[in-house]
Amino acid sequence: MEKPAEVLRIFEKYTPLVDGEIKSLLSAQDNLLMYDMMSYFFGYLDEDMKPVTGFGGKRFRPGICLLLADFYGSLEKTIEIATSIEIFHNFTLIHDDIEDRDQMRRGRPTVWNKWGINHGINTGDAQLLLVNLEFDRFAKKNPTISSRIHELTNKRYLTIAEGQFMDFHFSELPIHHAEVTEKGSFDLMGSKSGVLVGLPAEVAGLVAGKSDEECKALWDYGYNLGLAYQLSDDLVSIWGSSEKSGKLELADIKEKKKTLPIIHLYEISNAGNKTILENLYNKKQDLTDLETAAVKRLLDDSDTYEYVWAKAQECVSKVCEAIEKLSITLEDKRLLKEINEALIVDIRKAAK
Amino acid sequence: MEKPAEVLRIFEKYTPLVDGEIKSLLSAQDNLLMYDMMSYFFGYLDEDMKPVTGFGGKRFRPGICLLLADFYGSLEKTIEIATSIEIFHNFTLIHDDIEDRDQMRRGRPTVWNKWGINHGINTGDAQLLLVNLEFDRFAKKNPTISSRIHELTNKRYLTIAEGQFMDFHFSELPIHHAEVTEKGSFDLMGSKSGVLVGLPAEVAGLVAGKSDEECKALWDYGYNLGLAYQLSDDLVSIWGSSEKSGKLELADIKEKKKTLPIIHLYEISNAGNKTILENLYNKKQDLTDLETAAVKRLLDDSDTYEYVWAKAQECVSKVCEAIEKLSITLEDKRLLKEINEALIVDIRKAAK
Repeated sequence: MEKPAEVLRIFEKYTPLVDGEIKSLLSAQDNLLMYDMMSYFFGYLDEDMKPVTGFGGKRFRPGICLLLADFYGSLEKTIEIATSIEIFHNFTLIHDDIEDRDQMRRGRPTVWNKWGINHGINTGDAQLLLVNLEFDRFAKKNPTISSRIHELTNKRYLTIAEGQFMDFHFSELPIHHAEVTEKGSFDLMGSKSGVLVGLPAEVAGLVAGKSDEECKALWDYGYNLGLAYQLSDDLVSIWGSSEKSGKLELADIKEKKKTLPIIHLYEISNAGNKTILENLYNKKQDLTDLETAAVKRLLDDSDTYEYVWAKAQECVSKVCEAIEKLSITLEDKRLLKEINEALIVDIRKAAK
Repeated sequence: MEKPAEVLRIFEKYTPLVDGEIKSLLSAQDNLLMYDMMSYFFGYLDEDMKPVTGFGGKRFRPGICLLLADFYGSLEKTIEIATSIEIFHNFTLIHDDIEDRDQMRRGRPTVWNKWGINHGINTGDAQLLLVNLEFDRFAKKNPTISSRIHELTNKRYLTIAEGQFMDFHFSELPIHHAEVTEKGSFDLMGSKSGVLVGLPAEVAGLVAGKSDEECKALWDYGYNLGLAYQLSDDLVSIWGSSEKSGKLELADIKEKKKTLPIIHLYEISNAGNKTILENLYNKKQDLTDLETAAVKRLLDDSDTYEYVWAKAQECVSKVCEAIEKLSITLEDKRLLKEINEALIVDIRKAAK
């Protein structure tokens, strides 16, 4: 794993709070392998079910939530809701991995790969119920605002499930279909990646009792940060090393995911290359290594990297606009902007 | 479909309340095929996505909840929570059907069979989120008790997910394993079938503001009714016609489910038949039609029907004991007992 940028170490204050809360919730349940599967996925257990650290993912979403809460002086009462959003996020990953047939995540076998699809489905379901139990811990501390936040989080969660539905639909369309456009791609990213950062940001404001305008700015901040992060992740999946991402090399291409880089490549391709891409993306199976390499070459020879990177930067601009609207100190604003720069990295430039 | 016993028509008062609530919730969502899949599963749409009636299942669990609420004079404020439990129950069925690879339910293709496993997983997930949104409707009407009921329902739901986990475990054990016992079978049935009737019964008491003792008696009533109903369903699956159950003929045997009839058959079998059963139940694949027929013959030639029927009757006795403890009129108690008799039918005797 690459050493994170110095500014991201700010999250090291919040990660143990979230992990402590998740561990406390899991240890309050019965002693069942099902909960150990969750502990494994959260990165607390290794493949032999022995305690381990360093595989838990970034805890980025609750980190953003708690950093903002800290700015507002409401860290303590925000821990449980930030944690429940992280539990939800990890639930979506357990089921996503089944749906995408992804065998590896964070450098380790996925839950379904290790224990089978049935356990993957059911353990995910149980984890979605733990989201509700963790919410109850939040509600106990914050009884007056809990019903409003219950409603908001569940509506947002449902938007994410709708996004997943549209993702299936999108993946089933031929690449030349009229719905497969840059706009379609942004709508999809918004309903999943955007919401999953927008929600923890706006929740920080709601718990702190901020105004509707402030909460809207927080939503815009998180939503666009989620988009920018997704776009940069799509670039990493193509031009980054698998060691860095923990995913299989060029998996997005191999699995014919219609990410923005691919949609853009198709849009700018000449008739001959369009036909090649149509044939490859209409295949029922995954691409072979040779086919994957051919698509990678087309991407390399095009302006795709620069184009998508510019789109990510447009999102970052919106993030910065939203930051300016927040009622936080200049220092805190500067910190948020440094976080953008550390998260959304121009990997081609950085590699030079 | 068989005509239901006259006393069960009492539920016809509550079914439209629950269906109306589910339809209102679904129509409040975006216009997405995902929600039509739910409408299909709830029995509101046919296989061509045209409005239909008569395929929605019995709405038995919310029916019990609302009947009890009606006894207590609190019908109106209980509708939403009874509905949310029904939405949860149907969510479990959508995922169960994937996990069991069941192709048919209520005489129609299951969701995963019609739209694929990925849609089955995701639509189930979305439906579990709708449980939370329906809960919010309940909480709006009943703000003072909502947090207590949120906690209770989610703990019970988690018990059901744990039951599903143990079910996988149970199904993977060889039939001669020390854990495959009548007790193990009852624990499993309890955590799924028992809880799914115990919960709506106890919730009726909680919403009505009844004492802890009354709520405990309601739980005992529902839990044991759920067990009795499951046992009679296991008998129907073997000795009933598929027309009646809506399931494939002898599916439980074919899929080598370790229901109490099979566990009992194995326990009482001689060494020769034990070996036959061990060989069949250790197969990786489903049983063939010939093998299924052979197991059916062993069941026919044993006392299994009578044995399991007697167990169901023991549960019914506990149901009746619990009914006696309730603070409802004698007439209402008699009605509940008549419902037992109509639900838990001695199909062999009835067929004579």
